[in-house]
Amino acid sequence: METTLQSASKTVVIGPERPFCIIGERINPTGRKAFQAQLQKGDISQLEIDIAEQVAGGAHVLDINVGDPLADEVGLMRRAVVRAQELTDLPLCIDSSIIEALEAGLEVYQGKALVNSVTGEDERLEAILPIVARHGAAVIALANDDEIPMEPQRRYEIARKIVSAAGDHGIPPEDIVIDALAMPIGAEPRAAVLFFETLRLIREGLGVNTTCGASNTSFGLPGRHGLNAHFIATASTHGLTSAIMDARSPACVDGAHAADVLHARDEYGMGWIRTFRARQAAAAAAAG
Amino acid sequence: METTLQSASKTVVIGPERPFCIIGERINPTGRKAFQAQLQKGDISQLEIDIAEQVAGGAHVLDINVGDPLADEVGLMRRAVVRAQELTDLPLCIDSSIIEALEAGLEVYQGKALVNSVTGEDERLEAILPIVARHGAAVIALANDDEIPMEPQRRYEIARKIVSAAGDHGIPPEDIVIDALAMPIGAEPRAAVLFFETLRLIREGLGVNTTCGASNTSFGLPGRHGLNAHFIATASTHGLTSAIMDARSPACVDGAHAADVLHARDEYGMGWIRTFRARQAAAAAAAG
Repeated sequence: METTLQSASKTVVIGPERPFCIIGERINPTGRKAFQAQLQKGDISQLEIDIAEQVAGGAHVLDINVGDPLADEVGLMRRAVVRAQELTDLPLCIDSSIIEALEAGLEVYQGKALVNSVTGEDERLEAILPIVARHGAAVIALANDDEIPMEPQRRYEIARKIVSAAGDHGIPPEDIVIDALAMPIGAEPRAAVLFFETLRLIREGLGVNTTCGASNTSFGLPGRHGLNAHFIATASTHGLTSAIMDARSPACVDGAHAADVLHARDEYGMGWIRTFRARQAAAAAAAG
Repeated sequence: METTLQSASKTVVIGPERPFCIIGERINPTGRKAFQAQLQKGDISQLEIDIAEQVAGGAHVLDINVGDPLADEVGLMRRAVVRAQELTDLPLCIDSSIIEALEAGLEVYQGKALVNSVTGEDERLEAILPIVARHGAAVIALANDDEIPMEPQRRYEIARKIVSAAGDHGIPPEDIVIDALAMPIGAEPRAAVLFFETLRLIREGLGVNTTCGASNTSFGLPGRHGLNAHFIATASTHGLTSAIMDARSPACVDGAHAADVLHARDEYGMGWIRTFRARQAAAAAAAG
Protein backbone atom coordinates (compact mmCIF):
# COMPACT_ATOMS: atom_id res chain seq x y z
CA MET A 1 0.00 0.00 0.00
CA GLU A 2 1.32 3.49 -0.79
CA THR A 3 0.78 6.77 1.05
CA THR A 4 1.14 9.82 -1.18
CA LEU A 5 2.16 13.13 0.37
CA GLN A 6 2.48 16.38 -1.53
CA SER A 7 3.77 19.89 -1.21
CA ALA A 8 2.79 22.53 -3.78
CA SER A 9 5.39 21.14 -6.18
CA LYS A 10 6.71 17.82 -4.88
CA THR A 11 5.31 14.33 -4.27
CA VAL A 12 6.72 11.82 -1.79
CA VAL A 13 5.37 8.28 -1.68
CA ILE A 14 5.71 6.05 1.38
CA GLY A 15 5.52 2.32 0.70
CA PRO A 16 7.29 -1.02 1.10
CA GLU A 17 8.84 -0.88 -2.36
CA ARG A 18 9.88 2.77 -1.98
CA PRO A 19 13.00 4.17 -0.33
CA PHE A 20 12.56 4.27 3.44
CA CYS A 21 10.88 7.60 4.24
CA ILE A 22 12.81 9.88 6.60
CA ILE A 23 10.47 12.26 8.43
CA GLY A 24 12.79 14.94 9.83
CA GLU A 25 11.86 15.56 13.46
CA ARG A 26 14.10 18.41 14.52
CA ILE A 27 11.62 21.25 14.11
CA ASN A 28 10.28 20.78 17.61
CA PRO A 29 10.94 22.83 20.77
CA THR A 30 10.89 19.83 23.14
CA GLY A 31 14.02 20.00 25.26
CA ARG A 32 15.28 23.15 23.49
CA LYS A 33 15.09 26.13 25.87
CA ALA A 34 16.32 28.74 23.42
CA PHE A 35 13.80 27.68 20.76
CA GLN A 36 11.04 27.67 23.40
CA ALA A 37 11.91 31.23 24.42
CA GLN A 38 11.87 32.32 20.78
CA LEU A 39 8.44 30.76 20.20
CA GLN A 40 7.10 32.45 23.33
CA LYS A 41 8.12 35.77 21.73
CA GLY A 42 6.50 34.76 18.44
CA ASP A 43 9.89 34.36 16.76
CA ILE A 44 9.99 31.47 14.25
CA SER A 45 13.32 32.38 12.64
CA GLN A 46 14.87 29.17 13.99
CA LEU A 47 12.93 27.30 11.29
CA GLU A 48 15.38 28.56 8.71
CA ILE A 49 18.31 26.78 10.38
CA ASP A 50 16.42 23.65 11.37
CA ILE A 51 14.80 23.13 7.99
CA ALA A 52 18.07 23.68 6.12
CA GLU A 53 19.78 21.07 8.32
CA GLN A 54 17.05 18.47 7.89
CA VAL A 55 16.99 18.98 4.12
CA ALA A 56 20.79 18.77 3.91
CA GLY A 57 20.75 15.60 6.02
CA GLY A 58 18.37 13.87 3.64
CA ALA A 59 14.87 14.18 5.10
CA HIS A 60 12.00 13.38 2.72
CA VAL A 61 9.23 14.94 4.83
CA LEU A 62 9.52 17.55 7.60
CA ASP A 63 7.69 17.29 10.91
CA ILE A 64 6.63 20.74 12.14
CA ASN A 65 5.92 21.07 15.85
CA VAL A 66 5.80 24.48 17.53
CA GLY A 67 4.06 23.39 20.71
CA ASP A 68 4.79 25.39 23.84
CA PRO A 69 2.38 25.82 26.74
CA LEU A 70 3.35 29.50 27.12
CA ALA A 71 2.95 30.37 23.44
CA ASP A 72 0.02 30.86 21.05
CA GLU A 73 0.46 27.49 19.35
CA VAL A 74 -2.42 27.94 16.91
CA GLY A 75 -1.06 31.21 15.55
CA LEU A 76 2.51 29.87 15.57
CA MET A 77 1.53 26.75 13.63
CA ARG A 78 -0.21 28.83 10.97
CA ARG A 79 2.87 31.01 10.53
CA ALA A 80 5.30 28.08 10.77
CA VAL A 81 3.55 26.12 8.04
CA VAL A 82 3.49 29.16 5.75
CA ARG A 83 7.17 29.87 6.45
CA ALA A 84 8.22 26.23 6.03
CA GLN A 85 6.61 26.14 2.61
CA GLU A 86 8.70 29.16 1.62
CA LEU A 87 11.87 27.43 2.84
CA THR A 88 11.42 23.94 1.39
CA ASP A 89 9.49 22.01 -1.23
CA LEU A 90 9.34 18.89 0.96
CA PRO A 91 5.89 17.79 2.12
CA LEU A 92 5.14 18.63 5.76
CA CYS A 93 3.95 16.62 8.71
CA ILE A 94 1.81 18.91 10.89
CA ASP A 95 2.46 17.88 14.47
CA SER A 96 0.52 19.01 17.53
CA SER A 97 -1.46 17.68 20.45
CA ILE A 98 -3.78 20.71 20.06
CA ILE A 99 -6.53 20.00 17.56
CA GLU A 100 -6.97 23.68 16.66
CA ALA A 101 -3.27 23.90 15.83
CA LEU A 102 -3.53 20.89 13.50
CA GLU A 103 -6.49 22.54 11.79
CA ALA A 104 -4.73 25.91 11.51
CA GLY A 105 -1.73 24.23 9.89
CA LEU A 106 -3.87 22.28 7.44
CA GLU A 107 -5.78 25.43 6.45
CA VAL A 108 -2.66 27.17 5.16
CA TYR A 109 -0.92 24.06 3.78
CA GLN A 110 -0.70 23.68 0.02
CA GLY A 111 -0.78 20.04 -0.98
CA LYS A 112 -1.47 16.81 0.86
CA ALA A 113 -0.06 16.92 4.38
CA LEU A 114 0.61 14.25 6.96
CA VAL A 115 -1.03 14.94 10.35
CA ASN A 116 0.75 13.87 13.57
CA SER A 117 -1.23 12.37 15.25
CA VAL A 118 -4.37 10.58 16.33
CA THR A 119 -4.64 7.69 18.83
CA GLY A 120 -7.16 4.92 19.31
CA GLU A 121 -9.10 6.90 21.91
CA ASP A 122 -12.67 7.48 20.76
CA GLU A 123 -12.75 11.20 21.52
CA ARG A 124 -9.46 11.83 19.66
CA LEU A 125 -10.69 9.82 16.68
CA GLU A 126 -13.98 11.70 16.54
CA ALA A 127 -12.26 15.07 16.86
CA ILE A 128 -9.32 14.60 14.48
CA LEU A 129 -10.49 12.26 11.71
CA PRO A 130 -13.13 14.72 10.35
CA ILE A 131 -10.43 17.40 10.04
CA VAL A 132 -8.06 15.00 8.26
CA ALA A 133 -10.87 13.95 5.93
CA ARG A 134 -11.97 17.51 5.19
CA HIS A 135 -8.44 18.52 4.16
CA GLY A 136 -7.73 15.30 2.25
CA ALA A 137 -4.67 14.71 4.41
CA ALA A 138 -2.98 11.53 5.61
CA VAL A 139 -2.57 10.85 9.32
CA ILE A 140 -0.16 9.16 11.70
CA ALA A 141 -2.10 6.98 14.14
CA LEU A 142 -0.48 5.83 17.36
CA ALA A 143 -1.27 2.22 18.24
CA ASN A 144 -2.29 3.10 21.76
CA ASP A 145 -5.41 4.36 23.50
CA ASP A 146 -5.37 5.67 27.07
CA GLU A 147 -2.66 3.09 27.77
CA ILE A 148 0.42 2.04 25.82
CA PRO A 149 0.07 -1.72 25.46
CA MET A 150 3.28 -3.79 25.21
CA GLU A 151 1.51 -6.79 23.60
CA PRO A 152 1.84 -6.72 19.78
CA GLN A 153 -1.63 -8.21 19.34
CA ARG A 154 -3.21 -5.43 21.41
CA ARG A 155 -1.38 -2.74 19.43
CA TYR A 156 -2.53 -4.41 16.23
CA GLU A 157 -6.13 -4.38 17.40
CA ILE A 158 -5.96 -0.65 18.14
CA ALA A 159 -4.45 -0.06 14.69
CA ARG A 160 -7.26 -2.05 13.12
CA LYS A 161 -9.83 -0.05 15.06
CA ILE A 162 -8.30 3.22 13.84
CA VAL A 163 -8.22 2.09 10.20
CA SER A 164 -11.88 1.09 10.53
CA ALA A 165 -12.88 4.39 12.17
CA ALA A 166 -11.00 6.31 9.48
CA GLY A 167 -12.92 4.42 6.81
CA ASP A 168 -16.14 5.57 8.46
CA HIS A 169 -14.93 9.13 7.86
CA GLY A 170 -14.01 8.42 4.24
CA ILE A 171 -10.27 8.17 4.88
CA PRO A 172 -8.81 5.19 2.97
CA PRO A 173 -6.27 2.82 4.62
CA GLU A 174 -3.48 4.17 2.40
CA ASP A 175 -3.82 7.52 4.18
CA ILE A 176 -3.19 5.96 7.60
CA VAL A 177 0.40 5.56 8.83
CA ILE A 178 0.47 3.50 12.02
CA ASP A 179 3.00 4.50 14.66
CA ALA A 180 3.86 1.06 16.04
CA LEU A 181 5.40 2.60 19.19
CA ALA A 182 9.16 2.33 19.61
CA MET A 183 9.87 2.06 23.34
CA PRO A 184 13.11 2.20 25.37
CA ILE A 185 15.06 -1.07 25.42
CA GLY A 186 16.75 0.18 28.59
CA ALA A 187 13.41 -0.17 30.40
CA GLU A 188 12.11 -3.30 28.62
CA PRO A 189 14.74 -5.53 26.98
CA ARG A 190 12.15 -7.03 24.61
CA ALA A 191 10.83 -3.61 23.46
CA ALA A 192 12.39 -3.90 19.99
CA VAL A 193 11.42 -7.56 19.56
CA LEU A 194 7.81 -6.65 20.44
CA PHE A 195 7.98 -3.71 18.03
CA PHE A 196 9.17 -5.96 15.17
CA GLU A 197 6.35 -8.40 15.93
CA THR A 198 3.84 -5.53 15.92
CA LEU A 199 5.13 -4.52 12.49
CA ARG A 200 4.62 -8.07 11.21
CA LEU A 201 1.02 -8.18 12.46
CA ILE A 202 0.23 -4.78 10.90
CA ARG A 203 1.92 -5.66 7.60
CA GLU A 204 0.14 -9.00 7.29
CA GLY A 205 -3.21 -7.95 8.73
CA LEU A 206 -3.64 -4.38 7.48
CA GLY A 207 -0.91 -3.72 4.91
CA VAL A 208 -0.77 -0.04 5.84
CA ASN A 209 2.39 2.03 6.17
CA THR A 210 4.14 2.36 9.51
CA THR A 211 6.33 4.79 11.40
CA CYS A 212 7.82 5.39 14.85
CA GLY A 213 9.84 7.83 16.87
CA ALA A 214 13.06 5.95 16.24
CA SER A 215 15.19 7.53 18.94
CA ASN A 216 12.95 6.31 21.77
CA THR A 217 14.56 2.87 21.48
CA SER A 218 17.95 3.94 22.76
CA PHE A 219 16.74 6.19 25.58
CA GLY A 220 19.11 5.92 28.56
CA LEU A 221 21.80 4.01 26.66
CA PRO A 222 25.13 5.36 25.35
CA GLY A 223 26.03 5.28 21.63
CA ARG A 224 22.45 6.23 20.75
CA HIS A 225 23.00 7.16 17.10
CA GLY A 226 24.48 3.75 16.30
CA LEU A 227 21.75 1.88 18.13
CA ASN A 228 19.01 4.00 16.54
CA ALA A 229 20.54 3.38 13.12
CA HIS A 230 20.44 -0.38 13.59
CA PHE A 231 16.95 -0.19 15.00
CA ILE A 232 15.78 1.70 11.89
CA ALA A 233 17.41 -0.69 9.41
CA THR A 234 16.31 -3.80 11.29
CA ALA A 235 12.76 -2.48 11.64
CA SER A 236 12.76 -1.78 7.91
CA THR A 237 13.41 -5.45 7.19
CA HIS A 238 10.33 -6.24 9.32
CA GLY A 239 8.18 -3.83 7.33
CA LEU A 240 8.67 -0.35 8.81
CA THR A 241 8.30 2.10 5.91
CA SER A 242 9.12 5.44 7.58
CA ALA A 243 10.52 6.90 10.78
CA ILE A 244 10.33 10.21 12.57
CA MET A 245 14.04 10.85 13.09
CA ASP A 246 16.67 13.55 13.18
CA ALA A 247 18.21 13.75 9.71
CA ARG A 248 21.23 15.56 11.20
CA SER A 249 22.49 12.13 12.32
CA PRO A 250 24.51 10.62 9.46
CA ALA A 251 24.46 7.24 11.24
CA CYS A 252 20.66 7.17 11.34
CA VAL A 253 20.29 8.38 7.76
CA ASP A 254 22.80 5.71 6.71
CA GLY A 255 20.68 3.14 8.52
CA ALA A 256 17.70 4.08 6.36
CA HIS A 257 19.80 4.15 3.19
CA ALA A 258 21.56 0.86 4.00
CA ALA A 259 18.14 -0.74 4.43
CA ASP A 260 17.27 0.50 0.94
CA VAL A 261 20.46 -1.02 -0.50
CA LEU A 262 19.98 -4.34 1.31
CA HIS A 263 16.35 -4.64 0.19
CA ALA A 264 16.99 -3.75 -3.44
CA ARG A 265 15.08 -0.46 -3.17
CA ASP A 266 18.26 1.35 -4.24
CA GLU A 267 19.36 -0.55 -7.34
CA TYR A 268 23.11 -1.08 -7.58
CA GLY A 269 23.45 1.24 -4.57
CA MET A 270 23.24 4.42 -6.64
CA GLY A 271 21.58 6.40 -3.81
CA TRP A 272 24.14 5.08 -1.32
CA ILE A 273 27.01 6.10 -3.62
CA ARG A 274 25.46 9.55 -4.16
CA THR A 275 25.20 10.18 -0.41
CA PHE A 276 28.77 8.98 0.12
CA ARG A 277 30.12 11.31 -2.58
CA ALA A 278 28.10 14.28 -1.29
CA ARG A 279 29.57 13.74 2.18
CA GLN A 280 33.08 13.48 0.75
CA ALA A 281 32.55 16.71 -1.15
CA ALA A 282 31.19 18.45 1.97
CA ALA A 283 34.13 17.21 4.04
CA ALA A 284 36.59 18.39 1.39
CA ALA A 285 34.89 21.80 1.25
CA ALA A 286 34.93 22.07 5.04
CA ALA A 287 38.65 21.21 5.07
CA GLY A 288 39.21 24.12 2.69
CA MET B 1 20.49 -25.47 18.19
CA GLU B 2 23.85 -24.62 19.75
CA THR B 3 27.37 -25.15 18.43
CA THR B 4 29.97 -25.43 21.17
CA LEU B 5 33.58 -24.50 20.38
CA GLN B 6 36.44 -24.78 22.83
CA SER B 7 40.03 -23.80 23.34
CA ALA B 8 42.10 -25.40 26.08
CA SER B 9 40.49 -23.11 28.63
CA LYS B 10 37.51 -21.31 27.05
CA THR B 11 34.11 -22.27 25.65
CA VAL B 12 32.17 -20.24 23.07
CA VAL B 13 28.63 -21.22 22.13
CA ILE B 14 27.01 -20.17 18.86
CA GLY B 15 23.23 -20.13 18.88
CA PRO B 16 20.12 -18.02 18.24
CA GLU B 17 19.74 -17.09 21.91
CA ARG B 18 23.45 -16.33 22.33
CA PRO B 19 25.31 -13.12 21.52
CA PHE B 20 26.05 -12.95 17.80
CA CYS B 21 29.37 -14.77 17.30
CA ILE B 22 32.15 -12.70 15.72
CA ILE B 23 34.66 -14.92 13.93
CA GLY B 24 37.69 -12.63 13.42
CA GLU B 25 38.89 -13.02 9.84
CA ARG B 26 42.01 -10.89 9.69
CA ILE B 27 44.58 -13.66 10.11
CA ASN B 28 44.69 -14.35 6.38
CA PRO B 29 47.30 -13.36 3.77
CA THR B 30 44.78 -12.75 0.98
CA GLY B 31 45.50 -9.33 -0.50
CA ARG B 32 48.36 -8.69 1.97
CA LYS B 33 51.69 -8.77 0.12
CA ALA B 34 53.89 -8.18 3.16
CA PHE B 35 52.23 -11.01 5.09
CA GLN B 36 52.52 -13.28 2.04
CA ALA B 37 56.24 -12.57 1.79
CA GLN B 38 56.66 -13.32 5.50
CA LEU B 39 54.84 -16.63 5.18
CA GLN B 40 56.98 -17.59 2.19
CA LYS B 41 60.00 -17.15 4.45
CA GLY B 42 58.33 -19.20 7.19
CA ASP B 43 57.84 -16.10 9.36
CA ILE B 44 54.58 -16.18 11.35
CA SER B 45 55.38 -13.26 13.66
CA GLN B 46 52.53 -11.22 12.11
CA LEU B 47 50.12 -13.40 14.07
CA GLU B 48 51.04 -11.55 17.23
CA ILE B 49 49.78 -8.22 15.83
CA ASP B 50 46.75 -9.62 14.02
CA ILE B 51 45.53 -11.73 16.92
CA ALA B 52 45.94 -8.88 19.41
CA GLU B 53 43.87 -6.58 17.16
CA GLN B 54 41.08 -9.11 16.66
CA VAL B 55 40.90 -9.84 20.37
CA ALA B 56 40.89 -6.13 21.24
CA GLY B 57 38.14 -5.52 18.66
CA GLY B 58 35.87 -8.09 20.25
CA ALA B 59 36.23 -11.32 18.26
CA HIS B 60 34.84 -14.46 19.93
CA VAL B 61 36.58 -16.97 17.63
CA LEU B 62 39.66 -16.46 15.43
CA ASP B 63 39.89 -17.71 11.85
CA ILE B 64 43.43 -18.85 11.05
CA ASN B 65 44.39 -18.97 7.37
CA VAL B 66 48.04 -19.11 6.28
CA GLY B 67 47.42 -20.21 2.72
CA ASP B 68 49.97 -19.14 0.13
CA PRO B 69 50.78 -21.06 -3.05
CA LEU B 70 54.50 -20.38 -2.65
CA ALA B 71 54.70 -21.46 1.01
CA ASP B 72 54.54 -24.78 2.88
CA GLU B 73 50.97 -24.33 4.06
CA VAL B 74 50.80 -27.60 5.98
CA GLY B 75 53.84 -26.76 8.06
CA LEU B 76 52.76 -23.16 8.47
CA MET B 77 49.29 -24.15 9.67
CA ARG B 78 50.75 -26.50 12.26
CA ARG B 79 53.00 -23.74 13.59
CA ALA B 80 50.31 -21.03 13.33
CA VAL B 81 47.79 -23.04 15.34
CA VAL B 82 50.37 -23.75 18.06
CA ARG B 83 51.40 -20.10 18.15
CA ALA B 84 47.82 -18.79 18.14
CA GLN B 85 47.03 -20.93 21.17
CA GLU B 86 49.94 -19.34 23.00
CA LEU B 87 48.68 -15.86 22.10
CA THR B 88 44.95 -16.22 22.85
CA ASP B 89 42.47 -18.37 24.71
CA LEU B 90 39.77 -17.86 22.05
CA PRO B 91 38.69 -20.96 20.12
CA LEU B 92 40.12 -21.17 16.60
CA CYS B 93 38.60 -21.67 13.19
CA ILE B 94 41.11 -23.61 11.08
CA ASP B 95 40.78 -22.29 7.56
CA SER B 96 42.32 -23.78 4.43
CA SER B 97 41.42 -25.12 1.02
CA ILE B 98 44.17 -27.74 1.49
CA ILE B 99 42.86 -30.79 3.29
CA GLU B 100 46.29 -31.71 4.70
CA ALA B 101 46.58 -28.22 6.19
CA LEU B 102 43.18 -28.59 7.94
CA GLU B 103 44.33 -31.93 9.31
CA ALA B 104 47.70 -30.55 10.44
CA GLY B 105 45.95 -27.72 12.28
CA LEU B 106 43.48 -30.07 13.97
CA GLU B 107 46.27 -32.40 15.10
CA VAL B 108 47.93 -29.70 17.19
CA TYR B 109 44.73 -27.94 18.33
CA GLN B 110 43.72 -28.30 21.96
CA GLY B 111 39.94 -28.22 22.32
CA LYS B 112 37.05 -28.32 19.86
CA ALA B 113 37.87 -26.36 16.72
CA LEU B 114 35.75 -25.03 13.90
CA VAL B 115 36.94 -26.13 10.43
CA ASN B 116 36.57 -23.75 7.47
CA SER B 117 35.28 -25.28 5.23
CA VAL B 118 33.52 -28.02 3.33
CA THR B 119 31.13 -27.60 0.39
CA GLY B 120 28.31 -29.74 -0.99
CA GLU B 121 30.62 -31.39 -3.55
CA ASP B 122 30.77 -35.14 -2.97
CA GLU B 123 34.54 -35.43 -3.10
CA ARG B 124 35.04 -32.57 -0.61
CA LEU B 125 32.46 -34.09 1.73
CA GLU B 126 34.07 -37.51 1.57
CA ALA B 127 37.55 -36.09 2.13
CA ILE B 128 36.84 -33.54 4.89
CA LEU B 129 33.97 -34.95 6.97
CA PRO B 130 35.98 -37.98 8.22
CA ILE B 131 38.72 -35.63 9.45
CA VAL B 132 36.19 -33.39 11.20
CA ALA B 133 34.57 -36.43 12.79
CA ARG B 134 37.87 -37.97 13.89
CA HIS B 135 38.90 -34.77 15.68
CA GLY B 136 35.45 -34.10 17.15
CA ALA B 137 35.43 -30.67 15.50
CA ALA B 138 32.62 -28.51 14.13
CA VAL B 139 32.65 -27.44 10.49
CA ILE B 140 31.56 -24.51 8.33
CA ALA B 141 29.74 -25.83 5.26
CA LEU B 142 29.29 -23.59 2.24
CA ALA B 143 25.84 -23.89 0.65
CA ASN B 144 27.29 -24.40 -2.81
CA ASP B 145 28.63 -27.28 -4.86
CA ASP B 146 30.57 -26.79 -8.10
CA GLU B 147 28.34 -23.76 -8.73
CA ILE B 148 27.14 -20.96 -6.44
CA PRO B 149 23.35 -20.99 -6.76
CA MET B 150 21.49 -17.71 -6.29
CA GLU B 151 18.14 -19.43 -5.55
CA PRO B 152 17.55 -19.75 -1.78
CA GLN B 153 15.79 -23.09 -2.23
CA ARG B 154 18.79 -24.56 -4.06
CA ARG B 155 21.17 -23.33 -1.35
CA TYR B 156 18.90 -24.83 1.26
CA GLU B 157 18.92 -28.18 -0.52
CA ILE B 158 22.73 -28.24 -0.58
CA ALA B 159 22.78 -27.36 3.14
CA ARG B 160 20.38 -30.22 3.83
CA LYS B 161 22.52 -32.62 1.81
CA ILE B 162 25.61 -31.60 3.82
CA VAL B 163 23.84 -32.03 7.18
CA SER B 164 22.71 -35.47 6.04
CA ALA B 165 26.18 -36.48 4.81
CA ALA B 166 27.70 -35.23 8.07
CA GLY B 167 25.23 -37.40 9.99
CA ASP B 168 26.47 -40.43 8.02
CA HIS B 169 29.93 -39.65 9.40
CA GLY B 170 28.65 -39.29 12.95
CA ILE B 171 28.75 -35.48 12.96
CA PRO B 172 25.57 -34.09 14.58
CA PRO B 173 23.69 -31.11 13.05
CA GLU B 174 24.78 -28.86 15.91
CA ASP B 175 28.37 -29.22 14.70
CA ILE B 176 27.51 -27.88 11.23
CA VAL B 177 27.54 -24.12 10.63
CA ILE B 178 26.11 -23.34 7.20
CA ASP B 179 27.72 -20.49 5.27
CA ALA B 180 24.64 -19.12 3.50
CA LEU B 181 26.81 -17.21 0.96
CA ALA B 182 26.85 -13.42 1.20
CA MET B 183 27.31 -12.09 -2.34
CA PRO B 184 28.02 -8.58 -3.70
CA ILE B 185 24.93 -6.36 -3.95
CA GLY B 186 26.81 -4.28 -6.52
CA ALA B 187 26.60 -7.24 -8.92
CA GLU B 188 23.13 -8.51 -7.93
CA PRO B 189 20.80 -5.99 -6.26
CA ARG B 190 18.76 -8.80 -4.66
CA ALA B 191 21.81 -10.59 -3.22
CA ALA B 192 21.00 -9.61 0.38
CA VAL B 193 17.27 -10.30 0.00
CA LEU B 194 18.10 -13.78 -1.34
CA PHE B 195 20.56 -14.28 1.52
CA PHE B 196 17.91 -13.38 4.12
CA GLU B 197 15.48 -15.79 2.47
CA THR B 198 18.14 -18.53 2.52
CA LEU B 199 18.59 -17.93 6.25
CA ARG B 200 14.86 -18.32 6.79
CA LEU B 201 14.73 -21.64 4.93
CA ILE B 202 17.74 -22.98 6.86
CA ARG B 203 16.40 -21.78 10.20
CA GLU B 204 12.95 -23.26 9.64
CA GLY B 205 14.06 -26.42 7.81
CA LEU B 206 17.28 -27.39 9.56
CA GLY B 207 17.64 -25.19 12.64
CA VAL B 208 21.44 -25.25 12.38
CA ASN B 209 23.72 -22.28 12.96
CA THR B 210 24.76 -20.05 10.10
CA THR B 211 27.61 -17.79 9.07
CA CYS B 212 28.92 -15.82 6.08
CA GLY B 213 31.80 -13.71 4.90
CA ALA B 214 30.03 -10.47 5.78
CA SER B 215 32.20 -8.07 3.79
CA ASN B 216 31.39 -9.71 0.44
CA THR B 217 28.06 -7.86 0.44
CA SER B 218 29.53 -4.41 -0.01
CA PHE B 219 32.18 -5.34 -2.58
CA GLY B 220 32.59 -2.50 -5.11
CA LEU B 221 30.54 0.02 -3.08
CA PRO B 222 31.82 2.94 -0.98
CA GLY B 223 31.13 3.21 2.75
CA ARG B 224 31.71 -0.53 3.13
CA HIS B 225 31.98 -0.67 6.93
CA GLY B 226 28.58 0.95 7.39
CA LEU B 227 26.92 -1.26 4.81
CA ASN B 228 28.53 -4.40 6.22
CA ALA B 229 27.41 -3.41 9.72
CA HIS B 230 23.79 -3.09 8.62
CA PHE B 231 24.02 -6.32 6.66
CA ILE B 232 25.25 -8.14 9.78
CA ALA B 233 22.55 -6.73 12.07
CA THR B 234 19.76 -7.21 9.54
CA ALA B 235 20.91 -10.77 8.77
CA SER B 236 20.92 -11.45 12.50
CA THR B 237 17.22 -10.59 12.70
CA HIS B 238 16.65 -13.19 9.96
CA GLY B 239 18.52 -15.86 11.91
CA LEU B 240 22.25 -15.44 11.14
CA THR B 241 24.09 -16.52 14.29
CA SER B 242 27.73 -15.74 13.37
CA ALA B 243 29.83 -13.98 10.76
CA ILE B 244 33.39 -14.18 9.56
CA MET B 245 34.35 -10.51 9.81
CA ASP B 246 37.18 -8.14 10.64
CA ALA B 247 36.84 -7.23 14.32
CA ARG B 248 39.06 -4.19 13.72
CA SER B 249 35.98 -2.44 12.29
CA PRO B 250 34.10 -0.76 15.19
CA ALA B 251 31.11 -0.23 12.88
CA CYS B 252 30.81 -3.94 12.09
CA VAL B 253 31.35 -5.00 15.70
CA ASP B 254 28.69 -2.46 16.72
CA GLY B 255 26.35 -4.02 14.15
CA ALA B 256 26.71 -7.39 15.87
CA HIS B 257 26.34 -5.86 19.34
CA ALA B 258 23.36 -3.70 18.32
CA ALA B 259 21.66 -6.83 17.03
CA ASP B 260 22.19 -8.39 20.45
CA VAL B 261 20.64 -5.35 22.17
CA LEU B 262 17.67 -5.23 19.78
CA HIS B 263 16.96 -8.95 20.15
CA ALA B 264 17.23 -9.01 23.95
CA ARG B 265 20.38 -11.14 23.87
CA ASP B 266 22.16 -8.35 25.77
CA GLU B 267 19.81 -7.63 28.67
CA TYR B 268 19.49 -3.93 29.47
CA GLY B 269 22.33 -3.29 26.99
CA MET B 270 25.04 -4.15 29.51
CA GLY B 271 27.38 -5.49 26.81
CA TRP B 272 26.71 -2.46 24.63
CA ILE B 273 27.47 -0.12 27.55
CA ARG B 274 30.67 -2.04 28.38
CA THR B 275 31.95 -1.72 24.79
CA PHE B 276 31.09 1.98 24.72
CA ARG B 277 32.97 2.64 27.96
CA ALA B 278 35.99 0.61 26.85
CA ARG B 279 36.18 2.68 23.65
CA GLN B 280 35.87 5.91 25.63
CA ALA B 281 38.68 4.78 27.92
CA ALA B 282 40.84 3.80 24.94
CA ALA B 283 40.19 7.16 23.24
CA ALA B 284 41.01 9.04 26.44
CA ALA B 285 44.22 7.04 26.84
CA ALA B 286 45.18 7.69 23.20
CA ALA B 287 44.54 11.43 23.69
CA GLY B 288 46.96 11.33 26.62
